[in-house]
Amino acid sequence: MKAEILKMLKERQGFVSGQELSDGLGVSRTAVWKAVNQLKAEGWQIEAVRSQGYRLLGEADVMTSSELATMLDTDWLGKRLAYYDETDSTNVQARKLAESGAPHGTLVAADCQTAGKGRRGRSWSSPKGTGIWMSILLRPAFSPVCASMLTLVAGMAVARGIEEACGLHPLIKWPNDLVIDGKKICGILTEMSTEDEEIRYVVIGIGINVNNEEFPPEIRDKATSLRLELGRSVRRSPVIAETARAFEEYYGIFCRSCDMSGLRQMYDGLLVNRGRQVCVLDPKGSYEGQALGIDDQGSLLVEREDGRVSHVISGEVSVRGIYGYV
Amino acid sequence: MKAEILKMLKERQGFVSGQELSDGLGVSRTAVWKAVNQLKAEGWQIEAVRSQGYRLLGEADVMTSSELATMLDTDWLGKRLAYYDETDSTNVQARKLAESGAPHGTLVAADCQTAGKGRRGRSWSSPKGTGIWMSILLRPAFSPVCASMLTLVAGMAVARGIEEACGLHPLIKWPNDLVIDGKKICGILTEMSTEDEEIRYVVIGIGINVNNEEFPPEIRDKATSLRLELGRSVRRSPVIAETARAFEEYYGIFCRSCDMSGLRQMYDGLLVNRGRQVCVLDPKGSYEGQALGIDDQGSLLVEREDGRVSHVISGEVSVRGIYGYV
Repeated sequence: MKAEILKMLKERQGFVSGQELSDGLGVSRTAVWKAVNQLKAEGWQIEAVRSQGYRLLGEADVMTSSELATMLDTDWLGKRLAYYDETDSTNVQARKLAESGAPHGTLVAADCQTAGKGRRGRSWSSPKGTGIWMSILLRPAFSPVCASMLTLVAGMAVARGIEEACGLHPLIKWPNDLVIDGKKICGILTEMSTEDEEIRYVVIGIGINVNNEEFPPEIRDKATSLRLELGRSVRRSPVIAETARAFEEYYGIFCRSCDMSGLRQMYDGLLVNRGRQVCVLDPKGSYEGQALGIDDQGSLLVEREDGRVSHVISGEVSVRGIYGYV
Repeated sequence: MKAEILKMLKERQGFVSGQELSDGLGVSRTAVWKAVNQLKAEGWQIEAVRSQGYRLLGEADVMTSSELATMLDTDWLGKRLAYYDETDSTNVQARKLAESGAPHGTLVAADCQTAGKGRRGRSWSSPKGTGIWMSILLRPAFSPVCASMLTLVAGMAVARGIEEACGLHPLIKWPNDLVIDGKKICGILTEMSTEDEEIRYVVIGIGINVNNEEFPPEIRDKATSLRLELGRSVRRSPVIAETARAFEEYYGIFCRSCDMSGLRQMYDGLLVNRGRQVCVLDPKGSYEGQALGIDDQGSLLVEREDGRVSHVISGEVSVRGIYGYV
């Protein structure tokens, strides 16, 4: 009910009477009053004036389950929503939910993570209110070998989500980071559980730096936040909602062919490495070349000096830009 | 301590005095007496005679944690052993243990499963005392794409384990069943959890029909047990122990190349499909051909009538013998 009240308050530019809310929702006025108090406790600034009703004052960036549910404009992603004020890691929670049968499209989000992690177990700073920590649970019918491409699909969705919600234009550093002006704004970690040659579930974890006002000195030139880029604080729910909407769209395209063929052109347009000299750190021998884009399987195409084109598979190698910043 | 007492009783062909046990283990005679009573409660037939001591009578097929620990003669597999008198499924338990940090080589076994399952969620009958239900937890450093071959490695290990423990010669129906005279004796289900392009853990579940005296009419011509084949009951611990030992050996060979190249010849020697006409049920169009063996990636090589050789990948297709029984 909180979600419905929030929606009605947001749609109206002024007061909504308690009677109107009570009639609209088919509940008692006492129930409305209780729900409004809960919303206030969550941080929403709601003014209550006798004989006029309730009015939403500012939209503070309190991210709550109700707010997220109101914002989400999707067909299937986030219909089941698990929101935590604080949790160890949204990926860990998503895996637990998956093991207990949560459906395809379950969305897990948290205001704060106490044990967030990045690739290869690196810890990921997740202080309260500063970032978006979310995980998408999928139960696809396709083969496990296709699943690694979902990291690329998610990267595209976050880039679009940030663009729609706040007008910035992040680029993708293949395979799973988003950058703005060469500084990291988002990381993606995809986990999977399989049974023989079938996928039990995939969990895509997304971490976005949103309202960080500064970073520790050692990463200050490597990381940024939406706030630092825009010079103002940013509401997180719309970014999540736009990302979810874009993910649904791109995932639909992906599932038609179970490869990147339908998304490749768009992905290449977002690829920060494209046209740049990169160094491929292959255990069998590193080499340099020019990044051309991805192939249909999501591998990075790197043209070497002798004209040969390598298909670089994620996980086998690392790629770094030669000119420092990416 | 139960494991040590069992070991001392097994090594001696006659009585072991309480004093000898007590001295050997550095515990009180009361502690010895209590441990012997626990072993009796687990089903071991131990005779206690005043002034002579304790003697092991028969080796009934009570499978216990102590007995398994005594039997296992391995370097790393089963050093951590989780034994259940009854559990939902050893794969489920192994996954839970993996999620809470259990080490590479953890072995899970149960006397009875209440929710055992086969491939694609098919239920798998697991009544008390009749079968071996075990799961091996691995944390390999190799790429997830190599993991599907572990099913083949495990199949070879079970075939060898059964041969060493009771002299029967099961063959392998590619990719993950063992058969004797065309009837199924064992199924293998491999599950995996990944993070980006790295394996978090692999769980190999193994179910073997051991002491079943009969099967339901609808599967009587498709399933058999070690007991039905031998005409006598079979102790399960030695089968598990020999399987574990063989798995260690074959896994070591597999890890040298992370493919089947070092095991392929041996695998092909066990392959019941080899040289037979098979029907490949490919969604893109079924076809018949002669199974030749596997390639280094564990795919089944099928020679078609026009001489072309298909590399059949597990999961994409089903293979069935044309002449009924396999």
